[in-house]
Amino acid sequence: MINKRKFIAVIGGNEPSTEEARMAEEVGRELAKRDAILVCGGLGGVMQAACRGAQSEGGLTIGILPGESRQAANPYVQIPIVTGIGYARNLAVVKSAQAVIAIGGSYGTLSEISHALQSGIPVIGLNTWSLSKNGQQDNSIIPAQNPVEAVDKALNLATN
Amino acid sequence: MINKRKFIAVIGGNEPSTEEARMAEEVGRELAKRDAILVCGGLGGVMQAACRGAQSEGGLTIGILPGESRQAANPYVQIPIVTGIGYARNLAVVKSAQAVIAIGGSYGTLSEISHALQSGIPVIGLNTWSLSKNGQQDNSIIPAQNPVEAVDKALNLATN
Amino acid sequence: MINKRKFIAVIGGNEPSTEEARMAEEVGRELAKRDAILVCGGLGGVMQAACRGAQSEGGLTIGILPGESRQAANPYVQIPIVTGIGYARNLAVVKSAQAVIAIGGSYGTLSEISHALQSGIPVIGLNTWSLSKNGQQDNSIIPAQNPVEAVDKALNLATN
Amino acid sequence: MINKRKFIAVIGGNEPSTEEARMAEEVGRELAKRDAILVCGGLGGVMQAACRGAQSEGGLTIGILPGESRQAANPYVQIPIVTGIGYARNLAVVKSAQAVIAIGGSYGTLSEISHALQSGIPVIGLNTWSLSKNGQQDNSIIPAQNPVEAVDKALNLATN
Repeated sequence: MINKRKFIAVIGGNEPSTEEARMAEEVGRELAKRDAILVCGGLGGVMQAACRGAQSEGGLTIGILPGESRQAANPYVQIPIVTGIGYARNLAVVKSAQAVIAIGGSYGTLSEISHALQSGIPVIGLNTWSLSKNGQQDNSIIPAQNPVEAVDKALNLATN
Repeated sequence: MINKRKFIAVIGGNEPSTEEARMAEEVGRELAKRDAILVCGGLGGVMQAACRGAQSEGGLTIGILPGESRQAANPYVQIPIVTGIGYARNLAVVKSAQAVIAIGGSYGTLSEISHALQSGIPVIGLNTWSLSKNGQQDNSIIPAQNPVEAVDKALNLATN
Repeated sequence: MINKRKFIAVIGGNEPSTEEARMAEEVGRELAKRDAILVCGGLGGVMQAACRGAQSEGGLTIGILPGESRQAANPYVQIPIVTGIGYARNLAVVKSAQAVIAIGGSYGTLSEISHALQSGIPVIGLNTWSLSKNGQQDNSIIPAQNPVEAVDKALNLATN
Repeated sequence: MINKRKFIAVIGGNEPSTEEARMAEEVGRELAKRDAILVCGGLGGVMQAACRGAQSEGGLTIGILPGESRQAANPYVQIPIVTGIGYARNLAVVKSAQAVIAIGGSYGTLSEISHALQSGIPVIGLNTWSLSKNGQQDNSIIPAQNPVEAVDKALNLATN
């Protein structure tokens, strides 16, 4: 049953480094191999690389788009969700997942990390933000050394 | 390819009449038979009946939920999208579809009809609202006599 | 105290007829004279005419904008609220009011009427939509013959 | 003219420390003394303390609420905006301001900081988050030593 499969979000910027794009693609492939469903923001960069990886292994990809048109989805999105609510769709991206893998990214990615942590959704980080408050480290973002470890951790933590 | 399939929204209330629920289930079955993907608001009533019909024919069902939890989805939703934006998710339901079938419904359904018409997305109506402005009939809601005709019309008009 | 004043939304299209624009301006003036605060979508047409009327009588005007920039507000908006959520801001326009006056308008206005009725917020209509379902008239939109009557009714019904 | 006044958002958690609440109240007072309009999320904690401070000096306070009811606003909110979009209202809080002052706060506050930085809106921090990416410090959050300095910096940077 499709709804017994795990939903994992992959988040990251529109303009990743070569290394980040490579990691995103590998994350997508690994998720598909393990039968997880990929959720993302549906646009380019990390999102597109992850979808391409997932599709190459026959995985299912969902893109939750900010704008008014399904045409904006990258070509590897199979299920485009058209929200029309701009960056507020960032919340839907993370809330629709049972765990989140963050790869690089800028402030938009940081907003998604924040919304996930606020909702109690586990966040695994690859080359991404780290946080501290009042000089004290916040260790809520779980680090991973590579895409396979990130997917391992995400699937283990995706229990709700 | 999944993204060559048509996305059709089925909208309607949480408390349909017996006849409306029966129509919704048949609409769901017909959409699945023709390989269309069902988009709905993910909750009960018309949404649940349509998903149940679609699933009985092996169709794919997407539920775009208003709240914070995937647990709120009806048991026939295969792809729950968790938006956390309340009734603003009504816009995402219709914008994610290429045509909309409205069955009965109350003011929430009317808001979805309005958002669809505003976005130029065709709306087919079964026992639903009709509109006039300044005493003049507005014929934008395309009537159908039965579920099969509604699905026929929706698929014919779902061109974008 | 400002928060003892009544909040009334004025909704309607970007491209009103001359008569609708005139009515909107008079509604704005009347609201200001009676110390009500005007809430609207912040853009042109009916929204701008209503704000201009309110400002001419020293009233307070709030514009809840769909886009990303306060610069989009019409020049008579004193409090621009920048939502970035597109047409989903229509919900915020009506929910922020204790009663709604609808003047003319197209499908966007109809979506606002629907959201207001769904939330139990009274809607007064001037030359606007009328509704029926399954051939039966729905009388939830309270008709007014002129701007003064519309404002009278809105203020009387704005009890929550 | 009200719309020549500057709009400054004050963000922070529902459960501030005593010191954070004291700072929030002083920030509110300072903003009001300098004729700035206070924008916040409308609820308790830092939001309520800031509104109380602003009101004590005759300032104007706007609360952009997540839920469906104006009754949820703290008693010092003069202009309640009811969005019904849950935490997606965080975006509206920061986008409606020309600069943001963050006081303490948890992940919700971090999401607001992120959305502000993404939109190019200056963020001043008092005892709040600090950010680094890939081991490199990100200095986008401008530190302030005390409430008066925070308000000084916010007003100087609020140019758009």
